[in-house]
Amino acid sequence: MVEAAQTAAFGDTVMFVSKDRNTYIRVLEPGGQFQTHYGVVRYDDVAGQPYGARLQTHLGKDLWLLTPSTDDLVRHLRRESQIIYPKDLGYILIKLGVRPGATVVEAGTGSGALTLALAMTVGETGHVYSYDRRADMQHIAQANLAAAGLAGQVTWIQRDILDGFDAHNADALFLDLPNPWDYLEQARAALRGGGFFGSIVPTINQVEALTEALYRGPWFMVEIEELLLRGYKTIPQRIRPDEQMVGHTGYLLFARALVEPTSPVASREGKENIVPD
Amino acid sequence: MVEAAQTAAFGDTVMFVSKDRNTYIRVLEPGGQFQTHYGVVRYDDVAGQPYGARLQTHLGKDLWLLTPSTDDLVRHLRRESQIIYPKDLGYILIKLGVRPGATVVEAGTGSGALTLALAMTVGETGHVYSYDRRADMQHIAQANLAAAGLAGQVTWIQRDILDGFDAHNADALFLDLPNPWDYLEQARAALRGGGFFGSIVPTINQVEALTEALYRGPWFMVEIEELLLRGYKTIPQRIRPDEQMVGHTGYLLFARALVEPTSPVASREGKENIVPD
Amino acid sequence: MVEAAQTAAFGDTVMFVSKDRNTYIRVLEPGGQFQTHYGVVRYDDVAGQPYGARLQTHLGKDLWLLTPSTDDLVRHLRRESQIIYPKDLGYILIKLGVRPGATVVEAGTGSGALTLALAMTVGETGHVYSYDRRADMQHIAQANLAAAGLAGQVTWIQRDILDGFDAHNADALFLDLPNPWDYLEQARAALRGGGFFGSIVPTINQVEALTEALYRGPWFMVEIEELLLRGYKTIPQRIRPDEQMVGHTGYLLFARALVEPTSPVASREGKENIVPD
Amino acid sequence: MVEAAQTAAFGDTVMFVSKDRNTYIRVLEPGGQFQTHYGVVRYDDVAGQPYGARLQTHLGKDLWLLTPSTDDLVRHLRRESQIIYPKDLGYILIKLGVRPGATVVEAGTGSGALTLALAMTVGETGHVYSYDRRADMQHIAQANLAAAGLAGQVTWIQRDILDGFDAHNADALFLDLPNPWDYLEQARAALRGGGFFGSIVPTINQVEALTEALYRGPWFMVEIEELLLRGYKTIPQRIRPDEQMVGHTGYLLFARALVEPTSPVASREGKENIVPD
Repeated sequence: MVEAAQTAAFGDTVMFVSKDRNTYIRVLEPGGQFQTHYGVVRYDDVAGQPYGARLQTHLGKDLWLLTPSTDDLVRHLRRESQIIYPKDLGYILIKLGVRPGATVVEAGTGSGALTLALAMTVGETGHVYSYDRRADMQHIAQANLAAAGLAGQVTWIQRDILDGFDAHNADALFLDLPNPWDYLEQARAALRGGGFFGSIVPTINQVEALTEALYRGPWFMVEIEELLLRGYKTIPQRIRPDEQMVGHTGYLLFARALVEPTSPVASREGKENIVPD
Repeated sequence: MVEAAQTAAFGDTVMFVSKDRNTYIRVLEPGGQFQTHYGVVRYDDVAGQPYGARLQTHLGKDLWLLTPSTDDLVRHLRRESQIIYPKDLGYILIKLGVRPGATVVEAGTGSGALTLALAMTVGETGHVYSYDRRADMQHIAQANLAAAGLAGQVTWIQRDILDGFDAHNADALFLDLPNPWDYLEQARAALRGGGFFGSIVPTINQVEALTEALYRGPWFMVEIEELLLRGYKTIPQRIRPDEQMVGHTGYLLFARALVEPTSPVASREGKENIVPD
Repeated sequence: MVEAAQTAAFGDTVMFVSKDRNTYIRVLEPGGQFQTHYGVVRYDDVAGQPYGARLQTHLGKDLWLLTPSTDDLVRHLRRESQIIYPKDLGYILIKLGVRPGATVVEAGTGSGALTLALAMTVGETGHVYSYDRRADMQHIAQANLAAAGLAGQVTWIQRDILDGFDAHNADALFLDLPNPWDYLEQARAALRGGGFFGSIVPTINQVEALTEALYRGPWFMVEIEELLLRGYKTIPQRIRPDEQMVGHTGYLLFARALVEPTSPVASREGKENIVPD
Repeated sequence: MVEAAQTAAFGDTVMFVSKDRNTYIRVLEPGGQFQTHYGVVRYDDVAGQPYGARLQTHLGKDLWLLTPSTDDLVRHLRRESQIIYPKDLGYILIKLGVRPGATVVEAGTGSGALTLALAMTVGETGHVYSYDRRADMQHIAQANLAAAGLAGQVTWIQRDILDGFDAHNADALFLDLPNPWDYLEQARAALRGGGFFGSIVPTINQVEALTEALYRGPWFMVEIEELLLRGYKTIPQRIRPDEQMVGHTGYLLFARALVEPTSPVASREGKENIVPD
């Protein structure tokens, strides 16, 4: 395992951190170097150093050699679009039951933040199928996954998913699209019975439209949730929440695929109406 | 993969869900049965059914046959103590870079919620070492992990961790204890260089004590964070946040293990003082 | 001023507090008594006591004699319906510019929580007009305001406000109704130019409907906001947020009444579309 | 009442608002003018206009003529220091029972945000005593209150409050200082029995220190709370929470002044220990 390595080796994805906690993720290549206003560090000098070590640039500045967390990897993705934040990624994994060996479908690919988290978690025994209409977006995501050493776990498909997915027994499927309600039939066809559906949408108007559509179809256990992450300043004698926080990334919706075509709570009148509460 | 199965088989961990969304997790055993006030379902009739199917009890009540998510598994753990909530579990995995193949240490075991999430994610190529002083607690966690089919990924150790951990090159280590600051030396010894440290504490007094201790030692990139999960009622024409929410589970603290014995921001006076901001 | 009194007098609205912080609000009347499981305190013995004093019941239990805050008064209202919470009341006062001398209209009355906060703030030089269709609800609110000594500041009107308000130059108007969008014309007619409009609704569906209606009419500066109040346990050595908190009371919407009949951002297409951001 | 005026008059504090919702607060003076990049509006043309009217600058740009809310006034204060935010101001008023006629003490003055909210609420029959050591800060606050027409309700005192307050029967007292625990004796001496104490502090270290001090002294009903305000984008077809929000302003602490010198929960051991929960 890369993670278990004690010392940095060529080919490793490493993270350099300055004293003021700026972070830089690079792949160590023979003859290469890391160059910033802190100065230069030659990769030939980095290889063989223990992780956690303090390095010095040619200007005498300190840099620490670390391995990136999944959070670090996601925050450093090259991006052309809004990404799904780490706070949401972890929860999505837990809610969709993603684990080594699972088959997961996502659309659209975007910059590949969720793709990365999925690919890392399903591991070599699982697989991720990532759909996007736009070739340019997928190329960015492909580069991102390759840089993280996870390209092998992903199949990239450029297609309008109105035409359906190739998969038919996926364990989980996630839609990060402006109008997920338009693709629920395709999503159901791609999932195994009982499969996990998830989606993220930024506006309450979309929450309404998707919730309505889920209650009309072969879906059960609809959930709407959102996560707020609060960071703190860590000076020991003056600990306090950050003045500014991310107030909203998106609403998360989840449901399970049923065999029968209708929702157990299809009728909105009468007693069943109160079921989803 | 268990997850990819289309139909329920003996030995599967399944979830029965009633129309009003009560959930029950069981392992299907030949000759067994599921019995509640909804009526009885015989496991011999369940085996072979597709996941996502509607079953009927002998009283004619509907039950849906699903596979549990990680979230479901955690919520149904038999517990003798407060568990780490799914919202925090997912984020911990992301922050500690837990992935298939990783070696992770935790103390204390508690009821095994984090153990379960870790074991599921490290997979068969990784391993979890779980420490607790109390045999009774570990027995509960062991039973919980066995029921989830994850016992093979965990080694259980009953010991006061003041005496140290056995591991020496762990990728990540998590402390869920009242006084994590007392075990930082042992934690450092168990982690590889650059390894990921995490902890959860409920009070601000503990946040202060742990933050101070981390800044004194060979740790870097101290972070304090907390997650708030907001659930919504899902009746399509009356969508609204739940009136009651969990207002606090715990503060999450993270740091990275360094090779040198002191923190880059050890001095609290002068310019370095403002670094952690 | 009642508030400035040093000692309790007959006619005062007082608050008794037990050691475990149970609170009881009563009006001191000659010959009366306060009776709970803590024992009996005779009002004749309370009159003349300084506020902040410790009393003893006939069972020897301690009770503290305090004056209620606005928060205390609201929390102790007799209620038949959901009230607007103190966290929202204070903000509404600030957003509607409510001050001594102001004329404020509200509908519906409900149990009178907002009525109380408004009546207390406009004082003897201002006035509150409170509308409700239901006589039974208004009787509860009237009793609540009378108990707080604020009945003189309020005029009660039982009417369907589809028929309009009597007021024509109100400084502020607040709607706490299921369908506030149906009464915007009446609301505009009751307000002075530039007058402050506010409303509280629990669901996102209502937020959408009201926002749309406000953008169609003579309103400007539409705002949608919500407040989350987090309480903490106060044991000095174990300070922590409460495990349970109120996750939602309602969305607050605000706007200002214009003279011209249309909103400055009536058009949704083109450049103006992005104005409300 | 100024608020009830239908048309703008010289001497009025008015608010000009542009189509893109920039806001400007000015006092109308004969011969004066409002000049921005939107163009010029002469006050002689504004006087006599109805509030809520649309004005036009000499460049033909629209401006709306409104009256400022308390929220608007606070947001436009000239400031040299962090102010207490409107979300907190409203709640402080409710928790301290501030109403027309009340006598309230505050220290330090800062830029006068709380001074303004207090002065507006106590009205002409109440009074605010505002203490600050720094003359320069008080001069800013004085100018701010004068601009809002509230100078008459406030007495300004430049003093180190370690030397005590002049007041002895204040209804409420608020400390906005780095070390409020150092002034609790002085605060108690300034308050009437049962009087309301409040304070705001940004760090958890200060929360701990102040809570400890309150439990040692003649205080009861200690509360620690914080308010989170979430704003929404209001485009009707794309309503969503703002991406960025203020994550922290300060922790609010409240207590009541007792006659006896000790707290009812002075002992931290034994049964009383759990009382404040």
